[in-house]
Amino acid sequence: MSDDWLATAHALADRAREISLRWFRTPLTVDLKADHSPVTEADCRIEAMCREQLAARYPSHGILGEEFGGVRADAEFVWLIDPIDGTASFISGLPLWGTLIALLQRGQPLIGMIDAPATAERWSAARGDIALFRAAGKSPQACRSSGCNQLSGARLCAPSPDSFVAQQADAFRRLSAQVAIRRHGGDCYAYGLLASGFLDLVVEIDLAPHDHLPLVPVIEAAGGVITDWSGRPLGLHSTGDVVAAATPALHHQALAVLAPGS
Amino acid sequence: MSDDWLATAHALADRAREISLRWFRTPLTVDLKADHSPVTEADCRIEAMCREQLAARYPSHGILGEEFGGVRADAEFVWLIDPIDGTASFISGLPLWGTLIALLQRGQPLIGMIDAPATAERWSAARGDIALFRAAGKSPQACRSSGCNQLSGARLCAPSPDSFVAQQADAFRRLSAQVAIRRHGGDCYAYGLLASGFLDLVVEIDLAPHDHLPLVPVIEAAGGVITDWSGRPLGLHSTGDVVAAATPALHHQALAVLAPGS
Repeated sequence: MSDDWLATAHALADRAREISLRWFRTPLTVDLKADHSPVTEADCRIEAMCREQLAARYPSHGILGEEFGGVRADAEFVWLIDPIDGTASFISGLPLWGTLIALLQRGQPLIGMIDAPATAERWSAARGDIALFRAAGKSPQACRSSGCNQLSGARLCAPSPDSFVAQQADAFRRLSAQVAIRRHGGDCYAYGLLASGFLDLVVEIDLAPHDHLPLVPVIEAAGGVITDWSGRPLGLHSTGDVVAAATPALHHQALAVLAPGS
Repeated sequence: MSDDWLATAHALADRAREISLRWFRTPLTVDLKADHSPVTEADCRIEAMCREQLAARYPSHGILGEEFGGVRADAEFVWLIDPIDGTASFISGLPLWGTLIALLQRGQPLIGMIDAPATAERWSAARGDIALFRAAGKSPQACRSSGCNQLSGARLCAPSPDSFVAQQADAFRRLSAQVAIRRHGGDCYAYGLLASGFLDLVVEIDLAPHDHLPLVPVIEAAGGVITDWSGRPLGLHSTGDVVAAATPALHHQALAVLAPGS
């Protein structure tokens, strides 16, 4: 059954990719949502397509999407869709955005997928299985997070420092000061690079379940660790702060530095 | 003669791309230079290849490179080479890095090239000619900057806010507050996106001539404007702060906001 779900996720990502690439780097009408985040027609069309496909295929499953909210959110199986994670990059011609898909069973992510259409790359995993990376024209291959277990050697990716406020800004400053390399603005793509062993640490705040739960099976199947800033598993009711690390040791060190008053 | 120089730049970029892609996303030894910026064997090999080719082909021309300094720097014609602009991205598996090549005549950039191997994209221009964009497997096409002439509608790309200090940090904060969308960490790739009309404004500090002069012919031939923060043309003795804009009107507004005490 899990194979069937994963195949469905791949089929959705394939169709989503066709839609997003039709709109990417074309003149776009950009609307601002209530939270001032941007949304385009591409976001809406992708989510509508996914909802239609899922409702036809699994009528008893719930669906939670970024743009159109939830249906049957209390079903045993619920799909999460973030049609374009990194819409600001999408609007700016930058290739670091993606479509995120997850299937949850009673709130636990069973399947996760990060598709990056602009670079033709995809990371996917079912819980308990290996993480797979596929690039255009190549066979899928297993991917593993790096062995980095020291902050001083870590390559960190995070949003802009001024998106962290109050205590979290202090915490991020402490963490930044201890890593080897810091990059910004990778959105979901950064988690793919972590699963492939090229980044070692990703730290974010204010993520919604459709932003973070699709990452969980990929990061965990690749050998990494992903939780909130207090070390709790991510779930539908998480606070939205996320730390993903290549190894348990690196994750432990990052949590210690991010803890208030450390 | 200009065609011959441009053909040489393309040939160098082709060979540089082969080298950089051989090292990209492989385990790398990273050294830190005196200014604490990272350097890899790929940076050094690319620059060495370019120097060898240029010395053989144009023995009277000067060469200024990021890694190995200058030879015949007072020659009428001087080549600038930045083997990997965005080494931190290169080391982190992110695709937004590139090789920069320029040819100067008496300090003025005649030819400029931005090659982005990881995405197989290249922007190039000779002064007074059109700017060309070529993507993998497609014919080169003319590219133009956007018509954006209002800060309130502008898509800005810049380094991390905390890389700006003192007065420049205040200036960057003022500018950030007025634009529509802000992205971080594009390095040279951001200027290519500006030349293609997807970003409208790029603001940086602390760039060296090999970082900024290869951008000048591309941005200008695409219809944009690129100067230092005081509106002066970029040159071998610039202070290193750079503002590139899609239109003269947008450039004028950005300079006004960046001016001290504005």
